[in-house]
Amino acid sequence: MRESHLDAVARIDESRLWQRHVEMATIGAIPGNGVDRPALSAADIEARKVLIGWARERGFGIAMDPIGNLFIRREGTDAQAPPVMTGSHMDSQPRGGRFDGMYGVLAGLEALEAIDEAKLSHRRPIELVVWTNEEGGRFQPCTMGSAVFTGARKLEEFLDVRDNEGIRLGDALATTLAATPDVAAHPFNTPAAAYIEAHIEQGPLLENSDRVIGVVTGIQGLRWFNIEVFGKTDHAGTTPLAMRKDAVRDAINIINALRELTRDPADVTRFTVGRMLVTPNSPNSVASHVLFSVDIRHTDREVIDRLGKLVEPTARAALEQCTMSIISTLHDDPCQFDRDVVAAVEQAAEALSIPSMRITSGASHDANYMARVCPGGMIFVPCAGGVSHNEAEDAKPADLAAGARVLTAALLNLADRP
Amino acid sequence: MRESHLDAVARIDESRLWQRHVEMATIGAIPGNGVDRPALSAADIEARKVLIGWARERGFGIAMDPIGNLFIRREGTDAQAPPVMTGSHMDSQPRGGRFDGMYGVLAGLEALEAIDEAKLSHRRPIELVVWTNEEGGRFQPCTMGSAVFTGARKLEEFLDVRDNEGIRLGDALATTLAATPDVAAHPFNTPAAAYIEAHIEQGPLLENSDRVIGVVTGIQGLRWFNIEVFGKTDHAGTTPLAMRKDAVRDAINIINALRELTRDPADVTRFTVGRMLVTPNSPNSVASHVLFSVDIRHTDREVIDRLGKLVEPTARAALEQCTMSIISTLHDDPCQFDRDVVAAVEQAAEALSIPSMRITSGASHDANYMARVCPGGMIFVPCAGGVSHNEAEDAKPADLAAGARVLTAALLNLADRP
Repeated sequence: MRESHLDAVARIDESRLWQRHVEMATIGAIPGNGVDRPALSAADIEARKVLIGWARERGFGIAMDPIGNLFIRREGTDAQAPPVMTGSHMDSQPRGGRFDGMYGVLAGLEALEAIDEAKLSHRRPIELVVWTNEEGGRFQPCTMGSAVFTGARKLEEFLDVRDNEGIRLGDALATTLAATPDVAAHPFNTPAAAYIEAHIEQGPLLENSDRVIGVVTGIQGLRWFNIEVFGKTDHAGTTPLAMRKDAVRDAINIINALRELTRDPADVTRFTVGRMLVTPNSPNSVASHVLFSVDIRHTDREVIDRLGKLVEPTARAALEQCTMSIISTLHDDPCQFDRDVVAAVEQAAEALSIPSMRITSGASHDANYMARVCPGGMIFVPCAGGVSHNEAEDAKPADLAAGARVLTAALLNLADRP
Repeated sequence: MRESHLDAVARIDESRLWQRHVEMATIGAIPGNGVDRPALSAADIEARKVLIGWARERGFGIAMDPIGNLFIRREGTDAQAPPVMTGSHMDSQPRGGRFDGMYGVLAGLEALEAIDEAKLSHRRPIELVVWTNEEGGRFQPCTMGSAVFTGARKLEEFLDVRDNEGIRLGDALATTLAATPDVAAHPFNTPAAAYIEAHIEQGPLLENSDRVIGVVTGIQGLRWFNIEVFGKTDHAGTTPLAMRKDAVRDAINIINALRELTRDPADVTRFTVGRMLVTPNSPNSVASHVLFSVDIRHTDREVIDRLGKLVEPTARAALEQCTMSIISTLHDDPCQFDRDVVAAVEQAAEALSIPSMRITSGASHDANYMARVCPGGMIFVPCAGGVSHNEAEDAKPADLAAGARVLTAALLNLADRP
């Protein structure tokens, strides 16, 4: 590693990086040290303003695109060169932790600041991006911001998506954009030279192996569906079971069948029903409508493909009394990261003598979309017990700083390439 | 039947009775001709005010007790005699119909008005009661007003019950009571000489048998439970299934086991899960908490007793990963109505040449609680296709009037007894 790069890496400030996590965790704080910071909520807007404030102090460029992705940029010596990008998200699950997403954002800012303090010049611009609605906790699907930025999906497809309270995404987005009127416009689909996302592992492999850096080689494949069951509301006391169209009953029939479909003695297949909305939701009334989510993941492309295709016929075959509709809300094939980016991360860890290992990501990330349009990669750091999407999510200041050092070195390596 | 009683019966005004249903159906109206009039809501308060207005025009006595049960009274010649009572409820299911409950209230008022127009005197007072929160759609349990009035439950047990929005019953009740400050106070537990409740059948027996009056001989037994499953929220993509505490998964395990427990080839047993609340309710997070309702009914006392006792051990045995708690929210044994009241209803129908049949009620009613403290009975009229707890609930004006005629004759018969 070059001397100048080492100088920048040395300026990564563990205490500053930690304090910023602490400050961001107060925005949308919930009991048990967690955060509830839904995409495009008041808390999300507040977090954006705090981040913009820090970026402005450094004189970095600040811009936002029409889906609210926020870009913070340190210019390179070649202003025309596509930037090397890094980033993650600031929205959280409804009962989420302090590090999921936020770490990648703050590690990216820390890298930019360290490089700035070292007064380094690099050929390509280095750009931090905060993706809108990565979690999909409030509005489905997840990883929406990167999907639109990369052209995989159209903004217009999502404007009428509603949250559990019936609020339209288009309206929440307009409120968010209006809250930071002094930020420049950024267009979709601008080219990137490379993308590296730093993230907590959200699994136990690093902790169990006593490694600090996960060199992420890819992301497992994922299928998301929303299934709606349409029955008929009836009196729970008078209607014989044979005469019912009980939407709860048939929703459970479907879930039982999908559980059978995805049964895997090796415990590699992931199957989750995390969201269920019942109407009219009264003990005394047979349910007329149930909407539920289906999340299936697998590392193997053939397996996830086969399972994904079987969801609809399996669900339909399980219906006894009702009708149903099904939509695919997300369809990610397993992704393989770029060899050069993976090598840049691995070499940075090696050069800094930080113990690392190669990992496939179980969680989906915005890096999945970015890796389709430019060389992509990720850096994982350990989180306590592998726990995530939970208030108890935790990480060590020293590990977070180590990840930021590897990120800084890898970004500089990529930014100076011809 | 006495000449004077026939005179009152002849004054039942089919058109007035129908118009009042139409007017009440505008309060809390929802698409498809239904109503959503939750107990102690703004719509419930409005319906109370309209009813009080009609009663006031006639000079009837008006009073309300501390749980909001509303009493409308025509005095008898013996002011000290316990009244003959009739009534039902004005709250509805979230997607309810225009006749469930409201019919018993308006038929009772129609009877009082017909008797008043005929200028009849009767020994006992005749009192119409509107019970608070019969449906249990917003606040559980159901039949709360009659449970408290008859002393089966204490008002204080219910004040901290919360609806799905977290609103306390005590607060909603205070708002309701404050909305009609000019109404006299009525104490709990006042003696009644008899109670007859008119209601739509909420089942298909009358329609299928071409009868207009159901002489109700009793009500089937019922057990209600709220089961809560406590798990742990985790990342849906990274957490192996064996390491999860998935509350949705275990809730469904329990429901599957209860479905097995209540399986009944004769289709007499009723089993319903109508309410499910999932937390955090996000597709990307393993659920940490599920609350769901269990409703089991049977006409046979031994069967409902046995099933009720097996709910908790069956649920606990079905748990794989989580813990649970269970509370009984309602426990009604099958009820047999009073022979004299049943006979009074049957004889009234016969005397008026209206075709009738004996029926056991599948639905629970406030009459269940009243029958524990005084001779009780019910009158059913047909509803289209037996459909209830549904916007499509419907009934014929002529059938509603026939029921009001039988009710008038039976009330007068009972009110003149020594």
